Amino acid sequence: MEQTKKIREGNIRIVSRLIRNLEDSEPEARTAIKNIFPYTGKAHIIGITGSAGAGKSTLVDGLISAFRKKNKTVGVLAIDPTSPFSGGALLGDRIRMQKHTEDPGVFVRSLATRGAMGGLSKAVGDAIHVLDAMGKDIILVETVGTGQQEVDIIYNSHTVIVVLVPGMGDEIQAIKAGIMEIADIFVVNKADHPGASQLLMELKNMINMAQIPEDGWPLPVMTVESAFEPIKFGEKIDSLAQNILKHYEYLVHSDQLKSRLHRKTMVEIKDALRTCILDQILSDLEANGELDRLAYKLISKESDPYTLAEEISSRYLKKRPGKPYQKKG
Amino acid sequence: MEQTKKIREGNIRIVSRLIRNLEDSEPEARTAIKNIFPYTGKAHIIGITGSAGAGKSTLVDGLISAFRKKNKTVGVLAIDPTSPFSGGALLGDRIRMQKHTEDPGVFVRSLATRGAMGGLSKAVGDAIHVLDAMGKDIILVETVGTGQQEVDIIYNSHTVIVVLVPGMGDEIQAIKAGIMEIADIFVVNKADHPGASQLLMELKNMINMAQIPEDGWPLPVMTVESAFEPIKFGEKIDSLAQNILKHYEYLVHSDQLKSRLHRKTMVEIKDALRTCILDQILSDLEANGELDRLAYKLISKESDPYTLAEEISSRYLKKRPGKPYQKKG
Repeated sequence: MEQTKKIREGNIRIVSRLIRNLEDSEPEARTAIKNIFPYTGKAHIIGITGSAGAGKSTLVDGLISAFRKKNKTVGVLAIDPTSPFSGGALLGDRIRMQKHTEDPGVFVRSLATRGAMGGLSKAVGDAIHVLDAMGKDIILVETVGTGQQEVDIIYNSHTVIVVLVPGMGDEIQAIKAGIMEIADIFVVNKADHPGASQLLMELKNMINMAQIPEDGWPLPVMTVESAFEPIKFGEKIDSLAQNILKHYEYLVHSDQLKSRLHRKTMVEIKDALRTCILDQILSDLEANGELDRLAYKLISKESDPYTLAEEISSRYLKKRPGKPYQKKG
Repeated sequence: MEQTKKIREGNIRIVSRLIRNLEDSEPEARTAIKNIFPYTGKAHIIGITGSAGAGKSTLVDGLISAFRKKNKTVGVLAIDPTSPFSGGALLGDRIRMQKHTEDPGVFVRSLATRGAMGGLSKAVGDAIHVLDAMGKDIILVETVGTGQQEVDIIYNSHTVIVVLVPGMGDEIQAIKAGIMEIADIFVVNKADHPGASQLLMELKNMINMAQIPEDGWPLPVMTVESAFEPIKFGEKIDSLAQNILKHYEYLVHSDQLKSRLHRKTMVEIKDALRTCILDQILSDLEANGELDRLAYKLISKESDPYTLAEEISSRYLKKRPGKPYQKKG
């Protein structure tokens, strides 16, 4: 329990090592999460998403300062989009956040996962627990993304900020159809660039069409200009931080906090089951060389993936869970 | 086997229904994949990825025409980035491809998945099998993405095309560190826009630094201008198509085709195991209301995700696969 104590005290060396172990799916990381779990659940978790070049890191950097002014401690997880390939290079942009490294109330980490598919979701969830157990009041999770990464971020966050920039081309239109359902706050960044007023108008139209009930969360749209004017930029970010805190209050007073927690918990159970059941079966198959034999069967068309998986299932599972699968056709 | 026959004959109605069932994870889709599996493995699968607004759909549209001129039949899967949220709206851009709908040698489908996390990977793999069994010579898989979607596309493709456009901001620099490892061909699209020559230079520097061996694939960088001049555009796309076919030849003559097939097969086994084992256990837990009980235990901090998952594992698994997990600390 020494480790748990040190994490709770905010020992940077111990926390960094644990996060590295999470990235590598080391088994001892699992024990650590078990131990710190009772001390989690206090932080306000904020997801920040948007396409590459939208200026998310600058916003995160601004938000750190804004929350520190409010005397809140801040943890940042920057999910590394290059992760599956390069093993997690720190984005150059994030180096800017290093100015906060002297401040013991701020902890910034880049997160990448090597290895297993679907591993990122679990690592993000677990790393959030670590920062939460460290006692950070605010946890900012930054990710580039459409698709799966955005799904992960909404499942893990209380408040989701979607950052848009003008001039991203036609495809953004289609993406916008999806982001309505994940955003709690919209930020139009680089609002001094051409096309900003059109983007703003489109967003507002979309929100009007969504017909949010009177006691619902009104989906604020905020604008931030390029950070050339530090004072003006700082003011905008301060009011963004204010809106973020307001959103948490809304979650508490409506029943949303409870339902978001439930949704997140479901994802956690599924991720843990994957680790404890699927990954175990796979490493078992791998250890006795059977995985290669199975692959050969598929490549030679001797069998198909589902027939193989059903065979493996009946070999490892005590009983066939659920209804037996009916072969048709 | 009536269904398999109809799929192999290219019956649009039957194929479309099957793909819809794949999106919805319907159990009958699994039987269909079992049946068509022996008829797969002939198509050249090409992944096309790049950020939103990079002009991927225009390229795909051009490639359809280019391959048709070479008398090859073409299937297109457009992976819908909005999938997890909006249930798969057809991107406006893709409507352009509709001009090929009269051509029986072309089949275009948008793919989205509702429901389970990680479901997209499986659905993409299975949908590729369907187009493959239909007898399409070339299958183009288009996806917006950084992160997981790009991982999926490399595991499923023989040839990966990464589309870049000038002026995407700083973050592209960081992403590029990762795309080196997934790209087989780079396309700099909108090469008549400002910043193109700088992007080209950076790409070429990167490739030089990678020190590709003499008998390796040289990682071509192609430029395509905005499609204002149809004849010039067509010529560029024709030579892109030529390079794509050359890459396949390279895969055949080196040992790469075999190793890519092996890698893809491993992913397929894992996806199928998830469907047949994990999803079954989850629906079993859900059916008897236990999933809610487990969630409550976590929310009340009575237990933690890994302890719960280990309990469930020992309940469902015949023997604990692999070494027993050692509790430390």
